[in-house]
Amino acid sequence: MIQCFCGMVHDAGRHGFRGALLATAEASSPPPASAGPVDGALIEDLVAANHILCDQGVVDGFGHVSARHDKNPNRYLLARSMAPALVSTDDIMEFDLDSTPVDQQGRRLYLERFIHGEIYKARPDVQAVVHSHSPAVIPYANTKVQLQPMNHISGFLGGGVPVFEIRDVGGPATNMLITNAMLGRALAATLGTRPVALMRGHGSVAAAHSVRHVVHRAVYTEVNARMQTDAMRLGEPVFLNEGEAAATTNTNDALVERPWNLWKRQLERR
Amino acid sequence: MIQCFCGMVHDAGRHGFRGALLATAEASSPPPASAGPVDGALIEDLVAANHILCDQGVVDGFGHVSARHDKNPNRYLLARSMAPALVSTDDIMEFDLDSTPVDQQGRRLYLERFIHGEIYKARPDVQAVVHSHSPAVIPYANTKVQLQPMNHISGFLGGGVPVFEIRDVGGPATNMLITNAMLGRALAATLGTRPVALMRGHGSVAAAHSVRHVVHRAVYTEVNARMQTDAMRLGEPVFLNEGEAAATTNTNDALVERPWNLWKRQLERR
Amino acid sequence: MIQCFCGMVHDAGRHGFRGALLATAEASSPPPASAGPVDGALIEDLVAANHILCDQGVVDGFGHVSARHDKNPNRYLLARSMAPALVSTDDIMEFDLDSTPVDQQGRRLYLERFIHGEIYKARPDVQAVVHSHSPAVIPYANTKVQLQPMNHISGFLGGGVPVFEIRDVGGPATNMLITNAMLGRALAATLGTRPVALMRGHGSVAAAHSVRHVVHRAVYTEVNARMQTDAMRLGEPVFLNEGEAAATTNTNDALVERPWNLWKRQLERR
Amino acid sequence: MIQCFCGMVHDAGRHGFRGALLATAEASSPPPASAGPVDGALIEDLVAANHILCDQGVVDGFGHVSARHDKNPNRYLLARSMAPALVSTDDIMEFDLDSTPVDQQGRRLYLERFIHGEIYKARPDVQAVVHSHSPAVIPYANTKVQLQPMNHISGFLGGGVPVFEIRDVGGPATNMLITNAMLGRALAATLGTRPVALMRGHGSVAAAHSVRHVVHRAVYTEVNARMQTDAMRLGEPVFLNEGEAAATTNTNDALVERPWNLWKRQLERR
Repeated sequence: MIQCFCGMVHDAGRHGFRGALLATAEASSPPPASAGPVDGALIEDLVAANHILCDQGVVDGFGHVSARHDKNPNRYLLARSMAPALVSTDDIMEFDLDSTPVDQQGRRLYLERFIHGEIYKARPDVQAVVHSHSPAVIPYANTKVQLQPMNHISGFLGGGVPVFEIRDVGGPATNMLITNAMLGRALAATLGTRPVALMRGHGSVAAAHSVRHVVHRAVYTEVNARMQTDAMRLGEPVFLNEGEAAATTNTNDALVERPWNLWKRQLERR
Repeated sequence: MIQCFCGMVHDAGRHGFRGALLATAEASSPPPASAGPVDGALIEDLVAANHILCDQGVVDGFGHVSARHDKNPNRYLLARSMAPALVSTDDIMEFDLDSTPVDQQGRRLYLERFIHGEIYKARPDVQAVVHSHSPAVIPYANTKVQLQPMNHISGFLGGGVPVFEIRDVGGPATNMLITNAMLGRALAATLGTRPVALMRGHGSVAAAHSVRHVVHRAVYTEVNARMQTDAMRLGEPVFLNEGEAAATTNTNDALVERPWNLWKRQLERR
Repeated sequence: MIQCFCGMVHDAGRHGFRGALLATAEASSPPPASAGPVDGALIEDLVAANHILCDQGVVDGFGHVSARHDKNPNRYLLARSMAPALVSTDDIMEFDLDSTPVDQQGRRLYLERFIHGEIYKARPDVQAVVHSHSPAVIPYANTKVQLQPMNHISGFLGGGVPVFEIRDVGGPATNMLITNAMLGRALAATLGTRPVALMRGHGSVAAAHSVRHVVHRAVYTEVNARMQTDAMRLGEPVFLNEGEAAATTNTNDALVERPWNLWKRQLERR
Repeated sequence: MIQCFCGMVHDAGRHGFRGALLATAEASSPPPASAGPVDGALIEDLVAANHILCDQGVVDGFGHVSARHDKNPNRYLLARSMAPALVSTDDIMEFDLDSTPVDQQGRRLYLERFIHGEIYKARPDVQAVVHSHSPAVIPYANTKVQLQPMNHISGFLGGGVPVFEIRDVGGPATNMLITNAMLGRALAATLGTRPVALMRGHGSVAAAHSVRHVVHRAVYTEVNARMQTDAMRLGEPVFLNEGEAAATTNTNDALVERPWNLWKRQLERR
């Protein structure tokens, strides 16, 4: 972890104002309006999530995490194009659900922001989304083996993890990226009502009802994949059944503060 | 390692007094009486054990370690519900063997504290218990492959490591957790006279005659599982036989200070 | 990361002058002339590359990275013989493409500098070369299994990664090293127009059009190898096809700044 | 790394004197005489070796490294019983080749010091010995698979790595440890003229003509084992043949300073 957490108060009012001003000057169709100031605690969690996901080995230079705006469900918050570990409050931008920035300020945007916008459109229950290339998970995206819950902590994987095949909608020679709304919609359709979907030749997405919950799911999807790969060397593992998966998810969703507090503290060791 | 070790003198007298006072005011049946002040060295070891188990990869945000009270075998000591690496002296609470706190102080408790209480009931020889989800061990809980001692350091695994199947006593759709005395008793019965038992779809428990010994067993159970999984890729390993396992356990139990001193010092690097 | 980045301004003029002077005094045939001062930003990137490659697990005490001279395509820059993580600006030396130093200054040279010189001769498009023994890659050099792109980030591996067998040109009992121009030429021939080639019983080389691109390729060749080895335990993976590999390489080559900025920042944590 | 390197000048004269004095007072047969002051650079290397072996994952709380005395080939230097990472100059003791301390000073001794003494007796060419339980190597001690050199850096493994089976000399129920001269001699006989031998259900030993060389061999035996285990998942690897192994050992023995300098510097990051 590289950045300290001081000075993270988010002046979203000023941000929104400046965005509207610049966008009017730069584009023919006006940019979407800002939903206004964001709750400071939400921004703080989103910045911490960027750092934690790197510290826990879920993202490296690539990958991103977003949160739905707390004042308007038709806006979401996502960093400008940069390595997550380096994101600070000032790098967080506001987008509408078509993934158009409220105020681009001449910044470079993540090519794959449509992952976030289209999942927020399709899933009113979702408040936060992670996209990563976490390394233990990708083997499950590229083979026929189903990722399944090895223990109660990963109960949210119960009932199956779908795999998105971009060849089905983008053809045989894409750059693999979700670079437009059509591909984002197709990925969201594969995700359906699940918390996690894998992306063949690419990585995965996780979705949840809060930033802390989505970080929990992204981290433990990776942890579970490592354990499952080890177990499958030994024999056919017994996984959690659907009843167990549902019951554990229920219990664990009330416990996400515990690892979150650890992960935040561990950021200080760097 | 996040916490410094300064100021860890435990004022158990004041703690016990305040506990009795608040409990009277809050509950209809009186809380169990405190066994009184705990030896400061025991508390210091228990706090260090919490930190070491995280630093050595045995616990993450989840998992816990307890010690039997040195003044009364019917009491044990366990942190309030929190990530082990963040535990400090003030977070250590006293419980009776039914896992009722002497003084809850409105704190959140580990849902699975019954693991500790019921093992202390069943095993008078046990002075300390670790529960973890250490990742290399879980594959042995979920498959038919027996965890066995790869070298002398893990001789305590000799004679077989039993696996607890919660479906046998809790039915097909539990949340996998040991959330009451009945489940705790069943787990303790599976453990029997062994130092380690695995828990299908969950993790493991280790038990020993001191905090330092139980940390040793928890760490080297994980180390042994990693080595065994690697060996089983290569062919059928020769494990320690029962005579070797018994002899090495005898020898190694006199040597636990050596790694303990290293692990304590390594906490300072964080 | 061990070295700070202060004081890295490269006084190549002085260096070149001293080199010519000493070489005249020491050797019968005059040393090659210096191409003159090197762009400071290039030297800074080359020193950072040395450190990043160690920090990211691509090199250890062994391995090296070079850059073609920005003023003269017939000269390249490479450290004197030492562990990459310890390289500072003053350790960077200038060589002609026969791998003769412009000014040896009595320093020990990498025995395998011919890897660099001969690839620069054969590949006018290449501006930087990495040679490493990165551990996840070597199994693909020693077995028949092809290293192939697991996801878009490693698209540059598409179309196949050739393996250099030194026995074919050096005979059955070499010391495995590329210690002369003939072996360097044979390795360059195996590399052909590819970005990466493996070396049986040894390691690999990566080549690219900038220092940042070659670091990207070296790091993600290792990351990809780890993921592929995990995937092949589970079943036959689907790899990127040639169209996907080409498209992703195109896209990713424009994004190398993102991980580079992270890796540079991560050097500070050490 | 925990200890700084300041103040490591070794006052072996005083040490030897005090040793003789105390031993006379304590034992019926007089202790062996000291060979006198040890070269300060040798002690410095031996202390650094203790720290490096832990930092590089070869030893943990257990394992040890010794050096033959530079003034008398019938004496060797080894720490008192403690975790290698915590060893400082004052912890280094002098032993004769029967592994009797010149001056015990009431200290606890490594139970397995006979590994060192008996190898020094059998191998006049050996100046330094490492004993470890490095985890990637043990699977090769417990299965029929031969550890073989994956690349030139581990060429010293060429020609086969013997495995010591303690049951052959100690019977079926030992504590696995080399706790006397008879077992030490049997281990030395298994080692023969090799640089490395494995010990079933235990670990390995490495021997070389200097402290830096033996550290190099211990580290790269572990690195090689990790790579071989990965390769054997993919197919049957091609290993270095005997000619290649001999040639690479020759070359690499002249290059051990390079990683040694890195490893020493990396100690400072802790």
